[in-house]
Amino acid sequence: MGIHFQVLGQMGMDNALLVKLENYRKLERLLFDCGDGTLTGLPYSDILGVDHLFFSHLHVDHVSGFDAYFRANFNRTSKENHIWGPPETAKIMQHRFQGYMWNLAEQYSTIWQVHEVFPEHIQTYRFDTAEGFRITHDLGQRKHSGVILDEEQYQVKAITLDHQTPCLGFAVQEKAKTRIDVAKLPGLGLQPGKWMEHLKDFHFEEKTLEVDGQVHETADLREKLLVGHPRGGVAYLTDFLLTKETREALQVFLKGMDILICEGQYMQEDLDRAQRNFHLTSQQAAQIALECGIKKLLLMHVSKRYDLAEWQKLLMEARRVFVNTDFPEHWPHMD
Amino acid sequence: MGIHFQVLGQMGMDNALLVKLENYRKLERLLFDCGDGTLTGLPYSDILGVDHLFFSHLHVDHVSGFDAYFRANFNRTSKENHIWGPPETAKIMQHRFQGYMWNLAEQYSTIWQVHEVFPEHIQTYRFDTAEGFRITHDLGQRKHSGVILDEEQYQVKAITLDHQTPCLGFAVQEKAKTRIDVAKLPGLGLQPGKWMEHLKDFHFEEKTLEVDGQVHETADLREKLLVGHPRGGVAYLTDFLLTKETREALQVFLKGMDILICEGQYMQEDLDRAQRNFHLTSQQAAQIALECGIKKLLLMHVSKRYDLAEWQKLLMEARRVFVNTDFPEHWPHMD
Repeated sequence: MGIHFQVLGQMGMDNALLVKLENYRKLERLLFDCGDGTLTGLPYSDILGVDHLFFSHLHVDHVSGFDAYFRANFNRTSKENHIWGPPETAKIMQHRFQGYMWNLAEQYSTIWQVHEVFPEHIQTYRFDTAEGFRITHDLGQRKHSGVILDEEQYQVKAITLDHQTPCLGFAVQEKAKTRIDVAKLPGLGLQPGKWMEHLKDFHFEEKTLEVDGQVHETADLREKLLVGHPRGGVAYLTDFLLTKETREALQVFLKGMDILICEGQYMQEDLDRAQRNFHLTSQQAAQIALECGIKKLLLMHVSKRYDLAEWQKLLMEARRVFVNTDFPEHWPHMD
Repeated sequence: MGIHFQVLGQMGMDNALLVKLENYRKLERLLFDCGDGTLTGLPYSDILGVDHLFFSHLHVDHVSGFDAYFRANFNRTSKENHIWGPPETAKIMQHRFQGYMWNLAEQYSTIWQVHEVFPEHIQTYRFDTAEGFRITHDLGQRKHSGVILDEEQYQVKAITLDHQTPCLGFAVQEKAKTRIDVAKLPGLGLQPGKWMEHLKDFHFEEKTLEVDGQVHETADLREKLLVGHPRGGVAYLTDFLLTKETREALQVFLKGMDILICEGQYMQEDLDRAQRNFHLTSQQAAQIALECGIKKLLLMHVSKRYDLAEWQKLLMEARRVFVNTDFPEHWPHMD
């Protein structure tokens, strides 16, 4: 039960993030970015089982593992195929879909939906394998106010960051698990009982509910008795310039997040270079974690210009600002 | 000195072929296909140094390592960038070139030439990085009669095979190394000497040559004295249906080749499946080697439907037809 995550890819190489959301009924998988080699070593069932692929942006180090993803899922009909990214993602993905000889395409019935996330709306397109992906089907726009995907057991929020090109940051939050506030039962003249299970059950859709021979409106009881049970969240931020405005926006965006997976591309002495390239230093990532009430920061996407000793220094620089900082577990141990 | 080759990729995975041609002046590298992981483990200098990339065809298992190739070379100006493949290669490569966000493209000056090989002509297109690869520049057509690339130290021939879509087979032959037929010297009244070096030197362009005080026409002497010194060749064949016509065409195409790198996709008991999918069995590959006077056959591109014992059987089936058959050296040893 709960939300699990796994940073993918090696130190100094392309990285990505796999988030798994698990409850008693199903396991959902969200993949954030898909650079070269990031899927290597992942169980094939995990690749086949990804429900949504989110791109922060479409630079080569975030997209060049897509062939491996698409090869596994190009003809998947057991799940819908959804890809998310900043503006222009659909056009670029359409090129990728067409980057093969499709002489046998007409035998396949798979469809792919690509969702472009703008600051205040989402534009969705559909591409059909049977058409060799040649036709862009416009499925229209819808507004959003931060939450781009709202599922039964989780929601995904996005924020547009600046990497000289729009780059999306993401936050996944498990939905509040509802529980009954039993202290309120006596005031309503109710006794605890099996009826409480129905009240908590998402799939109980009867309009009325009988409690001790008394008929109640289900919606009314839920309104009075169910309370939220806040759950943790995982955020993924990479490839952006940290300005004053971005820092303020992130304080709102990251509210309630436990874990931040963030690029720690440069050492602090390379701050100029970081800013010139619209990237972060590890200390800037730590500053974000500190300001936003994050519990744990994991640094990824570290520059391959450094050696092991410099990566260690980069980690220590972050820890001086935010002590609960680490590299992903499968990277070389640094303590 | 000479021609060297290296089969890339693991057993049951995507495979490719790197050919190196080396003389005292330079090292040239030719890459045939570029499937997933085929460049992994190759020295980065080899990827940076590829002079020509040849695609047999553009199915996913032959092209899905292209991101790694392009990432290394997308901005290479130290060498020209040439890609070869069957008809439609330019359109597909243009999609691949555009499969990234190119927000900084205008700062790059690299150009890429894509050559589509038809049975009797070659159509070339140019794509410019600075244009974000959006424009297809038509560089025109030229006829060929088998030889598609004719360089100082080697030539590459291509043949169009049938994989339900056109699929190219390739043969690389080092150019005949000229030597002087010394037995003819007395008949022409000539003494051996330093002048013979000039005669053999590609870069000696004087019209006349003095031998023992006597002036000779260089071209005339070359005509009378230089003889070919046949060199080995390496052929690469994969993904095609073996018909009677193809067998006959290959006997011409493979003439003079020492080494054949060939798909051995299926065991003989799966011949029906091989033919249905326009592939070869290992025994068919061996039959080609036998009929075409090949000295050594290396089987690659074996189906991952088999286990190790079945791959061994597949190898033995080929050896019963053509004894000098092996898998690539870096695959599990089978004898």
